Amino acid sequence: MIVMGIDPGYAIVGYGVLDYQRGNFRTLGYGAITTPADMPFESRLEVIYDELSFLLNKYRPESMAVEQLFFTSNQKTVIAVGQARGVIVLAGKKAHVPIYEYTPLQVKQSVVGYGRAVKKQVMEMTRVMLGLEKVPKPDDTADALAIAICHAHSAGSLLNKDLLRRQG
Amino acid sequence: MIVMGIDPGYAIVGYGVLDYQRGNFRTLGYGAITTPADMPFESRLEVIYDELSFLLNKYRPESMAVEQLFFTSNQKTVIAVGQARGVIVLAGKKAHVPIYEYTPLQVKQSVVGYGRAVKKQVMEMTRVMLGLEKVPKPDDTADALAIAICHAHSAGSLLNKDLLRRQG
Repeated sequence: MIVMGIDPGYAIVGYGVLDYQRGNFRTLGYGAITTPADMPFESRLEVIYDELSFLLNKYRPESMAVEQLFFTSNQKTVIAVGQARGVIVLAGKKAHVPIYEYTPLQVKQSVVGYGRAVKKQVMEMTRVMLGLEKVPKPDDTADALAIAICHAHSAGSLLNKDLLRRQG
Repeated sequence: MIVMGIDPGYAIVGYGVLDYQRGNFRTLGYGAITTPADMPFESRLEVIYDELSFLLNKYRPESMAVEQLFFTSNQKTVIAVGQARGVIVLAGKKAHVPIYEYTPLQVKQSVVGYGRAVKKQVMEMTRVMLGLEKVPKPDDTADALAIAICHAHSAGSLLNKDLLRRQG
């Protein structure tokens, strides 16, 4: 099962692609789509949409897992991040990839085992689970891989299959 | 000068298209893109993107004016509205239409003449300026026409031309 995890943003969109088979992860690719601060906002959205569409076509994931946004997120950026998330979700939909969303709490519980884990623990556990030498940079990329792990765990468990929360 | 005004949303996207020539308005079209509440969110975003792309191709506006969102907006919906706004802006960008944004305060000042005008005054003044028999329904449509008037006024005034605030 190929899963693409996405950490949404407008300056940096982290992505990570995993193949999950019988409890084992294989890392197919990861990285970040970045847009320069001096680019008009609509152009930044277009770059995100076009580059993500390219990646979806390249990796052809069976599902896309995107972190959920909350009103309690950074107040200065949440509306811009929300707009970026919109074009991310649209890219997934246009590529016919089912979209799932997870809260940061769900990601922590899935990767580390408990919801109060700090960011550093999540990243280190992600590194270990994927057998990577170093935690990928930037943080958004490591976050995206963690989100992909979270979805693989949820979707991989038959018990949880009916409990999956679809985007929306 | 053909202007398309947009009142962003995910359940209802109001739009209004005006032709502004030498201080006179001609209403070319208006309405609302609506998406059902029981449709998956990514499908709602796709409907908005596709229908707006159709409208942009139909009316070929020279500019698109979209209401700005604020963190102080409805807290329950602002993230979903933000995502819808993202695909609205992307549709404009993909159609090569320059995008401008205005605050509700700017719209009120432009249409009624003062920023403390209530919604009803803005709608009635919009109706009068466009020579319409009734205020268009739903409210989102009337709002979109008001945003289009606001942009026509700003862009129509040479003095203000350099002061136009581009999206972003």
